[in-house]
Amino acid sequence: MSQETQEATSSCLKRTHYCGDLRLTDAGTTAQINGWVKRRRDHGGVIFVDLRDRTGITQVVFDPQIDEKAHALADAVRSEYVLNVSGTVRERDPGELLFQAGEIELAVDSLNILNTAKTPPFPVEDDIEVAEDIRMRYRFIDLRRPEMQKTLAMRHKAALAARNYMNEQGFLEIETPILMNSTPEGARDVLVPSRHYPGRFYALPQSPQQFKQILMMSGVDKYFQIARCFRDEDTRSDRQLEFTQLDIEMSFAGVDDVLEVTEGLMKRIFEEAGDIPVQTPFLRLPYHESMARFGNDKPDTRFGMELTDLSDVMADCDFQVCGQVKAIAAPGGANFSRKDIDDLTQFVATYRAKGLAWVKVTTEGFASGIVKFFTTEQLETAQERTGAKPGDIMFFVADKPKVVADALGNLRLHLGKKLNLIDETQYNFLWIVDYPLFEWNEDENRYEPFHHLFTGGTEETLPLLDTDPGKVQSQHYDLVCNGYEICSGSVRIHQWDIQQKVFEVLGITPEEVESRFGYFIDALAYGTPPHAGVAPGLDRIVMLMRNEENIREVIAFPKSQQGLCPLTHAPSVVTDTQLEELSIRVDAEL
Amino acid sequence: MSQETQEATSSCLKRTHYCGDLRLTDAGTTAQINGWVKRRRDHGGVIFVDLRDRTGITQVVFDPQIDEKAHALADAVRSEYVLNVSGTVRERDPGELLFQAGEIELAVDSLNILNTAKTPPFPVEDDIEVAEDIRMRYRFIDLRRPEMQKTLAMRHKAALAARNYMNEQGFLEIETPILMNSTPEGARDVLVPSRHYPGRFYALPQSPQQFKQILMMSGVDKYFQIARCFRDEDTRSDRQLEFTQLDIEMSFAGVDDVLEVTEGLMKRIFEEAGDIPVQTPFLRLPYHESMARFGNDKPDTRFGMELTDLSDVMADCDFQVCGQVKAIAAPGGANFSRKDIDDLTQFVATYRAKGLAWVKVTTEGFASGIVKFFTTEQLETAQERTGAKPGDIMFFVADKPKVVADALGNLRLHLGKKLNLIDETQYNFLWIVDYPLFEWNEDENRYEPFHHLFTGGTEETLPLLDTDPGKVQSQHYDLVCNGYEICSGSVRIHQWDIQQKVFEVLGITPEEVESRFGYFIDALAYGTPPHAGVAPGLDRIVMLMRNEENIREVIAFPKSQQGLCPLTHAPSVVTDTQLEELSIRVDAEL
Repeated sequence: MSQETQEATSSCLKRTHYCGDLRLTDAGTTAQINGWVKRRRDHGGVIFVDLRDRTGITQVVFDPQIDEKAHALADAVRSEYVLNVSGTVRERDPGELLFQAGEIELAVDSLNILNTAKTPPFPVEDDIEVAEDIRMRYRFIDLRRPEMQKTLAMRHKAALAARNYMNEQGFLEIETPILMNSTPEGARDVLVPSRHYPGRFYALPQSPQQFKQILMMSGVDKYFQIARCFRDEDTRSDRQLEFTQLDIEMSFAGVDDVLEVTEGLMKRIFEEAGDIPVQTPFLRLPYHESMARFGNDKPDTRFGMELTDLSDVMADCDFQVCGQVKAIAAPGGANFSRKDIDDLTQFVATYRAKGLAWVKVTTEGFASGIVKFFTTEQLETAQERTGAKPGDIMFFVADKPKVVADALGNLRLHLGKKLNLIDETQYNFLWIVDYPLFEWNEDENRYEPFHHLFTGGTEETLPLLDTDPGKVQSQHYDLVCNGYEICSGSVRIHQWDIQQKVFEVLGITPEEVESRFGYFIDALAYGTPPHAGVAPGLDRIVMLMRNEENIREVIAFPKSQQGLCPLTHAPSVVTDTQLEELSIRVDAEL
Repeated sequence: MSQETQEATSSCLKRTHYCGDLRLTDAGTTAQINGWVKRRRDHGGVIFVDLRDRTGITQVVFDPQIDEKAHALADAVRSEYVLNVSGTVRERDPGELLFQAGEIELAVDSLNILNTAKTPPFPVEDDIEVAEDIRMRYRFIDLRRPEMQKTLAMRHKAALAARNYMNEQGFLEIETPILMNSTPEGARDVLVPSRHYPGRFYALPQSPQQFKQILMMSGVDKYFQIARCFRDEDTRSDRQLEFTQLDIEMSFAGVDDVLEVTEGLMKRIFEEAGDIPVQTPFLRLPYHESMARFGNDKPDTRFGMELTDLSDVMADCDFQVCGQVKAIAAPGGANFSRKDIDDLTQFVATYRAKGLAWVKVTTEGFASGIVKFFTTEQLETAQERTGAKPGDIMFFVADKPKVVADALGNLRLHLGKKLNLIDETQYNFLWIVDYPLFEWNEDENRYEPFHHLFTGGTEETLPLLDTDPGKVQSQHYDLVCNGYEICSGSVRIHQWDIQQKVFEVLGITPEEVESRFGYFIDALAYGTPPHAGVAPGLDRIVMLMRNEENIREVIAFPKSQQGLCPLTHAPSVVTDTQLEELSIRVDAEL
C-alpha cells in the first residue's frame, strides 16, 4: 500500500521501554523502542540515530555488521521520521559521551519505518530561536520539545494532585454548564446564539460563580471543579480567551476554613507536581498594610526594599507637593549613573509620578541635587526608616497616595529584578485580607463593590451597612505568590435581607435586581447555608512552577492575544446556512 | 442586622460530625451538626426535627427540660431552615424507630438558626411525584434529595477513578480548546461569534477529535481528557446540547491496546464508583454477527431470544415476500391473546415491517393462522433453530434484511422487557468489531465513511482501497453495555498517502480537503505515529450505574430538550451593544 513506510501491525508497535527508561543496568538485554528521529549521522559506515520520545533520547546504532537490512533501511531515515527499532542494549564508548549524553545505546537488529516526515520548519530542540507565531502554527512540532513535554506533564500532575487532594478533603467535583446565561457585568461575555430560541444567546461562564453558590443551596456542602472559564477582554499578555480555574466552594465555612483548604491544596500541588516545598500556614497581610508597604495588593515578598512613609517628617519641606511622601532604598544604588537615574525617572513617569527624587548614601554623607531641600535630620530619618546603608540610594516620590503607591511599588519591582535581589527558587505565598466591601466612585458619586456583589462583610462591621457602608470590611481574600495573584475568594452573603441591603447601598433597584439576578436572588430565600469559596488559577500556578511569564507556554493550544488559533486558524468564516439556522446575520457594513 | 437569623460566626459553623456519621457508638458524647430541616413536629411539648445534610438524617430533639432557649427558638423553625445544633448523642426510644430510621438522636442544648427558608415548592424527598419542569426550575431544592446527592457523588467518583486509572496507565490529561474551528460535517456545530474578527466564528468541539490526533503528532504518546463536547442536534431524549466524554488517544497502539485500556477503565469506574463487579476481557462480536443475531450493533445480551435466519427453509413458500425470513421465539408467549399479538404487529409496523407472522408451539403441535402455508418440516426447523418450547410463540418477519433486523431486533427488546427476561443487576459489556470502512450510499451512488474520515483499515484489507473499497474492513470498535453504546473508537489513519486514497474513494477533491481539513492533513505529513483512540461517554456510564434512562438525571444542571436552562432561563436576550461588538444582528424577520 504505502511504499515507503510499514503498516503498523501490533507486533511492531509494542515497546519494551520508553527511550528515557533505558539504563546501564539494561546492558546486554534486548529492547524495542519507538520514537522520532532527532538526528541521524553516518560515521565510518555506521549510522547513528538519536531517537526521541516523550521521556528522553536513546542513541540507536545501525551497524551493517549487526544487521545489513536495518542498516540499509536506516540510510533513508531523516529528521522526525517515526521509527520502531529493536536490538541489544549496550554500554556506549566513553569517547562518544563527549558529544551526546547517555550511558547506553541500542545496537539495532530490526527497523520498521512507521512514518516519514517532511523537513520540520524548526528543529525539535529546546533553546531555539524561533518566532512564536511559527512555533504556534506548527504546534505539533513545537510540543515535541522536551521543555514543552515537561510543562504538559506538570500541568497534568498539578490537576491530578488537586483533584485527589480535594477528594480527600470531602469535596465533590461537579460539572457546571458551559452554556449559561449572560450577566452584563464583570468582563465581557462570550456569547453563543441559540438555534431553538432565535434572538436569544447563551454566555460562556466567566466563572461558575452563580452555579457554585447554587450548589451550596443544593446541599452539596463541598464543591470543586477544574473549570474552563471565558473572558472576552481586550489584549493583555497574560490573559487568554479561555482559561482554567480550580473552582472551590464550601458550606458552613468561614474565612479560616477556606484558607486552610487552599493552603493544603497549594502545598499538595507545588510539592507533588512541581517538587517545590511549601510551608503552611501562609502569612496574612491586611490589604491596607500591603498597599502601604508594597504599593499594591499582590506584593512580591522575596525581597525587601519596602515603601517607607516619610510624610510626617517631610510634610512641611519645599519638596512636598501633595499629601504623601514615600521612599525606598535600593541596595548598591549609590553607583547608579545619571543615565540610570534618568531612566528610572522615566519609568516612574509611566505611573504618573511627576518626579523621582533621589539621595545617595555614601560613607561621606548624603549626595544629591535635592539634599539642600532637606535638613540632615530629615535625611537621617529617611535613612533610618528605609534602612539605607552607605552605597545605597534612596528614591522619593511625593504625590497623591495612589500615584505614590503605583510609582514606588513598580519601581521596587523593577529594581528588584535589575539588582538581582530576587531568589528565583523561592515561593512566597501570602494572603491579602481585610479588604473593604465597597469603594467610593468619585466620578459617579456612588459606592461600587470592591470585589463583587455577593461578597459578605464581617460580623463586626456589617451593622455599618446602614450607617457608613465605606467602613464595612469584607470577608474577601486574595492569595498572592511572588507578585502574582493566584486566587481570589470570599465568604458570600447567604442571607436574602443582607443581600438586599447591599443592592440598596449600591443603588441597584429591585427591577434591576430582578432582571439581572432574578433566579439567583430568589434561590437565596429557600434555605441557603453560610458558604465561602475561592478559585485558584491553574494556568498561573503552572506558570509559577515552570517559572514562565507567558501564559501561552503553559497551554497546549493557546490563542493569540486577539483570539486567533495559529494552528487551526479559528475563528473562521461559516456558511450562510449555519447563520440562517441561528437567525443571525453578520453586520452588513463589514 | 438580620433579625431572624444568626450571623455565621466561625464557632457556630464548625461541625463535629455529618448527620450520616453519627452512630450508636457515639451515644453519650457531644456533637455539633449542621443541616436542613426535613421535618419538624411537636410531640408532648418536645420538638423533634429531622435534620438533613448530604450524608443522611439525624433526629434532633428540643426538650425544654434540657435547654429552654433552644426549645423556644426551635418553635419558629420550618422546613428547609438551615440549622446549627449541638448537644448530646443518645440512643433513641426503640418505640420511635417505627416511624423513623436511625438508632440515635441528638438532645440539643444549643441552636443557631443560620437561615430561614420560604416554603419549598415540593418536599425534599425521594419518590415524589413532581413534574420535571418544576424540579428543574427549583433544581437547588431538587438536588437536596438523597437520590440526587447519590448521583452527584457517584459521578464525582467515576471521574476521579477514571483519572487515577488513566494516570497509572501513563496517560496525561491535556486540556484542548473549547473555542475551536468549525468543520461543516458530523452534527451541527455550536457557533461563537468572534469580536476581534468580525464575521468569523469559533465552534465548540463536537469532540476533541482533531486535537487528540494532533497531540499524538506532538509526541504526547498517551492523552486523555474528561472533555466537554457540544452538539446542536434536534431533539432526542438522551442527548444534551453539552455532554461529557472520557477522551482517550494513544500512539504506537493497535486495536488490542485500546480495548485493553478501555476494559481496565470500565472495570475501575464501575467497581470503584458503582460497586459493580466487571469481568474482563470483554467479548468481541463482529458487526455482521451482531446484526444477524440481534438486529443491531448495540445488542442487549442480558437475555436470549436471538434472531434466527430461516430464509433457506422458507425461501420457496408463499409466505416469503422478499429476500429474508427471520424469527424469534418468545418464552411463554403461547398464551398471548389476539390483542397482544395485534399490539405487537402494530409495534413492528413502526419499523416498517409489513406484517408479523406467528406460530404458537403447544404440546399438541403448532397453532396459527399461517400454519397451512408451511410444511411441518419447515415449522420443526424453525422450532429447532429458535429453540422454542411448548408454551412459546415464534414470530416471523419477512422483508428486506434492514427491515427484518429493525423490526425483529426491536421486537426482541420490547418482549425482553415485557416478559421480564432482563436481569437488571447484570452488566453485559461487549465489543462490536470488524465494521466495514465504507458504506455504499444507494441514493447518491457513492461511498460514505461508515464512521468517520480518519478511521484506519486493517492491514489485510487495505490493498482493496484501490480495487474494491466496500470490502475494506475498518479498525473501528464500539463498546456496548446492556443495549447502549458506551463508546466508539478506532485505529486512525496515520499515513498521509493512505488518507489521500480514502479521500479519493469518497470523492473528496483536493480543494475540498484543503478547505475542510487543511492544517490537519498538512500536519499528518510531519512524522505522525500510528495511533488509536476511543471516547466513552461519562453521562451514559453514570446512567448505566444508576439505572437511569433519562440523561438529565445524571447532570447537575441539565437543559431541556430545546436547550433551555429551566433554572437560569438561559438563553436570554442580550443588549444591542453586545451584538454590535460582535458585528452581528439578529435576523430582522423575527
